[in-house]
Amino acid sequence: MKKSGGLNGRIVDDGMMPLAKDSPAYYPLMSYAGLKPTYPVAAVNENGDPRNVEIAGELPLTIFVDDQEVVTLMTLGTHPEELALGYLHNQRLIEKIETVESVHVDWAKESAYIKTIGGNTGELLQSKLIKRTVTTGCGQGTVFSCTIDGLYESNITPMKLHQLTVNRILKDLTQYNEIYKAAGAVHGCALCSTQQVEIFVEDVGRHNAADTIAGKMWLERISGKDKIFYSTGRLTSEIVMKAALMEIPVLISRSGITHMGLELAQDLGITMIARVKGSKFLIFNGHDHFIHDA
Amino acid sequence: MKKSGGLNGRIVDDGMMPLAKDSPAYYPLMSYAGLKPTYPVAAVNENGDPRNVEIAGELPLTIFVDDQEVVTLMTLGTHPEELALGYLHNQRLIEKIETVESVHVDWAKESAYIKTIGGNTGELLQSKLIKRTVTTGCGQGTVFSCTIDGLYESNITPMKLHQLTVNRILKDLTQYNEIYKAAGAVHGCALCSTQQVEIFVEDVGRHNAADTIAGKMWLERISGKDKIFYSTGRLTSEIVMKAALMEIPVLISRSGITHMGLELAQDLGITMIARVKGSKFLIFNGHDHFIHDA
Repeated sequence: MKKSGGLNGRIVDDGMMPLAKDSPAYYPLMSYAGLKPTYPVAAVNENGDPRNVEIAGELPLTIFVDDQEVVTLMTLGTHPEELALGYLHNQRLIEKIETVESVHVDWAKESAYIKTIGGNTGELLQSKLIKRTVTTGCGQGTVFSCTIDGLYESNITPMKLHQLTVNRILKDLTQYNEIYKAAGAVHGCALCSTQQVEIFVEDVGRHNAADTIAGKMWLERISGKDKIFYSTGRLTSEIVMKAALMEIPVLISRSGITHMGLELAQDLGITMIARVKGSKFLIFNGHDHFIHDA
Repeated sequence: MKKSGGLNGRIVDDGMMPLAKDSPAYYPLMSYAGLKPTYPVAAVNENGDPRNVEIAGELPLTIFVDDQEVVTLMTLGTHPEELALGYLHNQRLIEKIETVESVHVDWAKESAYIKTIGGNTGELLQSKLIKRTVTTGCGQGTVFSCTIDGLYESNITPMKLHQLTVNRILKDLTQYNEIYKAAGAVHGCALCSTQQVEIFVEDVGRHNAADTIAGKMWLERISGKDKIFYSTGRLTSEIVMKAALMEIPVLISRSGITHMGLELAQDLGITMIARVKGSKFLIFNGHDHFIHDA
């Protein structure tokens, strides 16, 4: 979807499928500071021959909410506004999109500034951030204690899943991963309906791709309840957590799963399909809701 | 290398090559609480046939130094003591291994307890940890400001690298990645001499595998100056940083690189080889020190 330059005057292709639906009533004021994902560089091959190739971007993006610093993420930079919002949503640091007044990304300062209506979440947020330092702070993407609280409040409704649906989506997915094909070094995540891929995002961090999808869903009021989440990366506990916070009942990965990811999926009632190769795959959880082709 | 059960009474194979060298004079008191990396689980394939497979473990490990909580890492759990030490070393949170009295991992509490001699680093450490919250905290593994300071103090001496050496190591590496072959969902990192793979570690986090190698190097007083660091994962800025803090002059990855990873390698004078396929690869930095086969 092409967007004309916002606050930063850039024009970017956000790589997202246009979603045919009415615009929601409220949308925060946003910059459109998405960057081109790849950079051309000169390399040399094993025989000494010069090769011009593309490599993936990687930039720090520090998220501020009402002047309170929250976190620094390393990102490809294609969807910084959605990433910042999705991060705040998936960490349960902001509850309602209607309380977000604006999202302004300034790459010169490597920062995303989120202003809330009234601008007074600072104190509440600070108390949530303190809990991070005390309780946890996972090496792979920080987890706050309020996130864990949100997890068991999330409402996962099991969804019947046809083998046909999985195959249809896997086939549709072969059209995507443009950045990976050009430059490698990125993971892709997709939000899918039972018919097709709705949103596909690539980033240098698996977590960022998932958070960017969450941000887009939050902005567009897209429910996760009838959706399928796909990742090229592994289904670790954190990815399962993020899917749960988006209320998505089905997870599919081309890659493997971890034991803690599986336990969490079992606890939360999330269908987990992994080790996809062509039309072959393994169902690790949720087989009761799976309908094999006749 | 088999180790008899330590404080937790387990016997584990730590998957590391024994290093033929004299024991160093000082070694901290350590538990050997390494866990088996994989769990057997029952899955179902796309046709409904049952399949018994192995999946990778994933456990939180919270690191405490003299009762001060530092961070929680999600890990496979095979080398928790080396991981904890390597993390503290690579973040420059503890300067000398000789100040570490003991490392005790207790899985019942999902914690690694590091005691320093005198036990009074608490205050100094706390001042370093506070800087994290103020300055940065990268989504992919936390970075403290003292780490960045350490980075530009690190001493990288360029190393002549023969194409023959790279091919020898790549060939030797094909014997490794046992956990990945069994269960997927892990990344592997290796410390190599110009002759062979010296240490190979797999973990659910790329950063953890690198930190575990750093911990082993720190304990065994292995210099990085004449070594090559290999990773199955992408060479992002954080992996380049960790290699620099280990003073390793050559990085090789089967996967791609990021723009920030490349810039950092250029600044620090680290040779960067990536996109390895068989004996084909691309040299992104350090071509001046590379000697092609005649």
